[in-house]
Amino acid sequence: MRIGVDILGGDFWPEAPVEGAVLALDKFGPDIELVLIGDENLIRQELAKHGADPSRFSIVNCTEMVGMEESPTKGIASKPNSTINVGIGMVKTGQLDGFVSAGNTGAMLVASIMGLGRIPGVNRPTIGALFPNHNGEPILLLDVGANVDSKPEHILHYARLGSIYMESVRKVEKPRVGLMNVGEEESKGPADVKAAHALLKESGRLNFVGNVEGRDIYHGKADVYVCDGYTGNIILKFGESMYDVLKSRYAGDAFIEAFNFENYGGVPILGIRGISIIGHGISNGKAIASMIGSAVEAVRNGLVQKIEAAFQTDAQTADTK
Amino acid sequence: MRIGVDILGGDFWPEAPVEGAVLALDKFGPDIELVLIGDENLIRQELAKHGADPSRFSIVNCTEMVGMEESPTKGIASKPNSTINVGIGMVKTGQLDGFVSAGNTGAMLVASIMGLGRIPGVNRPTIGALFPNHNGEPILLLDVGANVDSKPEHILHYARLGSIYMESVRKVEKPRVGLMNVGEEESKGPADVKAAHALLKESGRLNFVGNVEGRDIYHGKADVYVCDGYTGNIILKFGESMYDVLKSRYAGDAFIEAFNFENYGGVPILGIRGISIIGHGISNGKAIASMIGSAVEAVRNGLVQKIEAAFQTDAQTADTK
Repeated sequence: MRIGVDILGGDFWPEAPVEGAVLALDKFGPDIELVLIGDENLIRQELAKHGADPSRFSIVNCTEMVGMEESPTKGIASKPNSTINVGIGMVKTGQLDGFVSAGNTGAMLVASIMGLGRIPGVNRPTIGALFPNHNGEPILLLDVGANVDSKPEHILHYARLGSIYMESVRKVEKPRVGLMNVGEEESKGPADVKAAHALLKESGRLNFVGNVEGRDIYHGKADVYVCDGYTGNIILKFGESMYDVLKSRYAGDAFIEAFNFENYGGVPILGIRGISIIGHGISNGKAIASMIGSAVEAVRNGLVQKIEAAFQTDAQTADTK
Repeated sequence: MRIGVDILGGDFWPEAPVEGAVLALDKFGPDIELVLIGDENLIRQELAKHGADPSRFSIVNCTEMVGMEESPTKGIASKPNSTINVGIGMVKTGQLDGFVSAGNTGAMLVASIMGLGRIPGVNRPTIGALFPNHNGEPILLLDVGANVDSKPEHILHYARLGSIYMESVRKVEKPRVGLMNVGEEESKGPADVKAAHALLKESGRLNFVGNVEGRDIYHGKADVYVCDGYTGNIILKFGESMYDVLKSRYAGDAFIEAFNFENYGGVPILGIRGISIIGHGISNGKAIASMIGSAVEAVRNGLVQKIEAAFQTDAQTADTK
């Protein structure tokens, strides 16, 4: 299996991505080949700092990058040889099984969706994030920002995609799906959320447990929490900042460390034809290594194939109804 | 000054409200008279448990209550003699300067808005909540659930109401207003949020600092954070649950205790003609005492009068434009 790593992305390039690759080497099995995509000279310099043998990695020399503040669409269109375009292109042609980048989030999203294409039947590809519940077990929240304007039918697909991910990759049996809302009662919430509730309830392919509230994320009422990308993004960043505040006081405490997003790796963009993982700009080496691990797990468990099969079945069942 | 306390509301009535009144007695100045509204026998029993002198309180005997699970509109309409209706009625007639209840949130909201009426010019009364930032200083988040479907012009009024509250009651000079969004750039976010951004920017009466993200709540980028009531409610409950999780591990720790909502009292419903404070159902005695303190501060600082004056000026300025 070949996993590509964007060396020219994130706030701490090239140090963090190279360190992540060094940390990930040999960690996820002997069949993993790490492909470092970036400026070859810089990569060799960084590997030397870690005393790592460059022959253990593949290097694709690539000196163009989409900057963190650049317009995603313009960056992707004007820089065909940027690390993001090269990495996604290699996934598309099968030269890579997955690609991870902590670079420009919008650019990764655009390149991944445009470059790899949607899985037939999926209305909106989505980005999720893993959180710990109060037992330190990961739960999935989605969408966390791919689609700030989400319609009820998009939320239905987030639920389906998130369930398949948690079941096939995270080995959660019949993942419980909760809809983020202001109260448990079906009658509560904005009009769109009420409509989403009805769709989730009627779907027949989800283990839908109903509305869940903000407090239920840590309290473990569900395994998959769905909402629009505006709300999900705010929840995610608020939760992460809580960890930052706590870390300033309780550095190294195992209980607090369970709230560190870096431990959970990234979730692949769900609903596209390939594995592409977007990391935080602030990702350090450890976070990049987790992202590589997440890509490996997604490939090993045939995530894309399982989503394709599920949405094909959904379509066939709908046809024969 | 006379502050009414609903003794038949919340998950722990009559114990918690009576305990709260006992804790609040003499705490907020010699001019405060506490009016306990509820079953007189129960009140006297509870006061006796605390060894409190009943003659230090006023008691309004009232045995009807709107249950926590009851439909707010039906409860308010069918029980004119319930503690909530009696308390709000006494605010309306001037027999009370403020009323606090940890009872049925919807019933309190309906009774307060219908009973006391909106301040002219305010499009939607709103409920806010105080949070600590990373320095333990309170910031205000609103709306947290009064209006799950909030339009851009409602969000503008939340900002104006929240600023007046923070300035007049919490003594924050020129409170900074941030709009909850997924990124700093004006171009980001759902259509309604972008429209709200434009209104806030153009208002001329706010210290608007632009978009803020989930991570900025603790990091102190603003004093007033505005969003729709769906998002705000989820943020509030998520933040509170974080405290619950931490408390289970670090009971009594002062750093963690800064995240305890009970320390911050309640924020009056903003935009109505009177002081009415809704507490959490789970409020304990300490939380009720904080709510009483919040009511006292709001009355002392002439909050309602200041909002009336500000919205009158806004209207006049708009007329002469």
